[in-house]
Amino acid sequence: MSTTLAPETVAGFRTAWRDLAPVGRATTGGYQRLAWTHDDLTLREWFAAQAVARGLDLVEDRAGNQWAWWGDPDADGPGVVTGSHLDSVPGGGAFDGPLGVVSALAAVDELRARGVRPSRPLGVACFTEEEGGRFGVACAGSRLLTGVLGPDRALGLRDTGGTTLADALRAAGRDPSTLGPDPQALARVGSFVELHVEQGRALVHSGDPVGVGRAIWPHGRWRVDLHGRGDHAGTTPLADRVDPMLALAALVQEVRAAALEAGALATVGKVVVEPNGVNAIPSLVRAWLDVRADDEHRVRQVLDRLRGYAPVEESWTGPTVLDADLSDTVAAALGDAGLTPPHLSTGAGHDAGILAAAGVPTTMLFVRNPTGVSHDPAEDADEADCLIGVGALTAALTRLVGDVPA
Amino acid sequence: MSTTLAPETVAGFRTAWRDLAPVGRATTGGYQRLAWTHDDLTLREWFAAQAVARGLDLVEDRAGNQWAWWGDPDADGPGVVTGSHLDSVPGGGAFDGPLGVVSALAAVDELRARGVRPSRPLGVACFTEEEGGRFGVACAGSRLLTGVLGPDRALGLRDTGGTTLADALRAAGRDPSTLGPDPQALARVGSFVELHVEQGRALVHSGDPVGVGRAIWPHGRWRVDLHGRGDHAGTTPLADRVDPMLALAALVQEVRAAALEAGALATVGKVVVEPNGVNAIPSLVRAWLDVRADDEHRVRQVLDRLRGYAPVEESWTGPTVLDADLSDTVAAALGDAGLTPPHLSTGAGHDAGILAAAGVPTTMLFVRNPTGVSHDPAEDADEADCLIGVGALTAALTRLVGDVPA
Repeated sequence: MSTTLAPETVAGFRTAWRDLAPVGRATTGGYQRLAWTHDDLTLREWFAAQAVARGLDLVEDRAGNQWAWWGDPDADGPGVVTGSHLDSVPGGGAFDGPLGVVSALAAVDELRARGVRPSRPLGVACFTEEEGGRFGVACAGSRLLTGVLGPDRALGLRDTGGTTLADALRAAGRDPSTLGPDPQALARVGSFVELHVEQGRALVHSGDPVGVGRAIWPHGRWRVDLHGRGDHAGTTPLADRVDPMLALAALVQEVRAAALEAGALATVGKVVVEPNGVNAIPSLVRAWLDVRADDEHRVRQVLDRLRGYAPVEESWTGPTVLDADLSDTVAAALGDAGLTPPHLSTGAGHDAGILAAAGVPTTMLFVRNPTGVSHDPAEDADEADCLIGVGALTAALTRLVGDVPA
Repeated sequence: MSTTLAPETVAGFRTAWRDLAPVGRATTGGYQRLAWTHDDLTLREWFAAQAVARGLDLVEDRAGNQWAWWGDPDADGPGVVTGSHLDSVPGGGAFDGPLGVVSALAAVDELRARGVRPSRPLGVACFTEEEGGRFGVACAGSRLLTGVLGPDRALGLRDTGGTTLADALRAAGRDPSTLGPDPQALARVGSFVELHVEQGRALVHSGDPVGVGRAIWPHGRWRVDLHGRGDHAGTTPLADRVDPMLALAALVQEVRAAALEAGALATVGKVVVEPNGVNAIPSLVRAWLDVRADDEHRVRQVLDRLRGYAPVEESWTGPTVLDADLSDTVAAALGDAGLTPPHLSTGAGHDAGILAAAGVPTTMLFVRNPTGVSHDPAEDADEADCLIGVGALTAALTRLVGDVPA
């Protein structure tokens, strides 16, 4: 077994990228693919068409996630699933998400080109709003699926324009009342392998095209409301002001200091100012914190130091240890294919982490990213590495689904 | 002469506020009346209907400002003009702007109720985008009218959604190619009296319902672009980050320190973050500065200290001394009506300042504001004070337009 692919697999892989390239281009040069927008619906239709073209059975679960099944997991027991997501952060790159979906479809093509006949059902998943780029909750689709995010809270989430998820679903032709956990869809997933572009440069440093995931750092999001007194910028004496922009400045510096002290990552990446007028002292500044570390204690240390700002938790994902047996099996399959994948831990959250927390044996494959940058148009992956990634995923799936002898 | 008004004037004044109350309500409880939006067009139609109802001649100049004339300034020479604006800052109050327009219309009613027959034309003006709340340039209508803001620059201005003024004008059914200075409209203005709610508490402290303006502070707006490197908040080591949010924190603190040192007012009231995602280190933070002081030297001192941030000037209005003779005449007319108006200088910019800089003899009347707050829903004025304001404006106009003996 090697990672060399059939010509038709490579051709299909390239066609997929050509299909996706124009969808949801951001003015910044990257991508803006937010859940349940027109662009997102275009991507959902594309995924559905890919499933149909391969004769896979398409299912949309109650959380809005899409599944394309080769074989029948209801009749033949839980299957092996691979996939990722097609949404992006605002102004994101091309690979975070789509690489896992396109590689999953290409792996199906390669398995067929090789004449593999799976002894277990094989699914390709496309999760909804992994990035939380529109409604603020990361991995919203997998959290809804597994019941970690309740439908009542989810439906009331608002985007920056004030539209609720309920309204966005209606506008997309979905019935919001059906949104909720889907134990039946979850029970079909016997194990899950997510392939993802690396969000860092560990593989650049080790010189490997792919790596196998071992853990996902604990991470969370918190909102801080800094209240002020709205007033005219040209007439209010400095001493009479309650200007929350000064509080924001102090918060941003305190967050960095707390992260350095705790050995964690902490970021203020999103700020919303009201009324946001040049000549108006703000009445409110809202800031969002993202905090992660290799262990939960460090995250809590950052938050303790920020207690005075009364941060409100918007999401929390505890430390995730990916399934050791599954990771070993995948690593062994890659070894048979001539690869020597290093073990990686990641600070980024993934649907894989949500499924792992729900009890699904889960692992991840990472593909080398020359820039190490992600969530930005500079995010990158060489085609040669991506194709090795498809080969690695094919090897892993071959091992996991088995091959019925002809 | 007193400031007591005819019952029909008071009734008309109250009806006007009832008309305006529902237009452009913001979710924050105040008003969001941004230029060339649907709400703004509703306000323009309301003003036009008020003109028609009073038999005034309605003219829209090439800058989009509305004028309602009693008498013919083209035939009978430049007239006396009063008025203000109907747009608001985002999340603004009810009075900043509308009080001047509603009081101007009420003064016309009162002059007629008293049988005054003006010996000079009398105009009521309603200026466009005084607040710069949508396209960022304060007093855009009067700046365009007087040629201080060129049409090419104006048409390319963008709102936060990326819409240009040119597109907004087209969407509002206007021809952008006609936008520009209008010397003919400006030549009709022999003198200008703008009534405005006070944006501070000087009248509260002096115990007067109205005051007469004497000067407008020099003031300007600058934009600062803080560039960073967009990256994933969960995977990028702190040491590898170029995070412009930290630069914003330093800027905000430096602005306050510079203002304290110079004895000026300086504010960061507007911030736009790209991409503004919770899990994305920003690639760009844009901040806007508003700087004012009682003399230009203090403003320059603030900017000198901020040189390292390379602030880009978006607008600048030098110190404005309102017309001393006109102010004395108005103060004398108010004295005859039993008022003892104090002299006020203001840190707020007004269309009156733009017209004064263009050589039009100009003054202002201020009406007491119990909270002193403006650009916020807490902005306030007692009806009793507002009606004294209408009486004061009527007395001033009577003196300025003369009364042809019957």
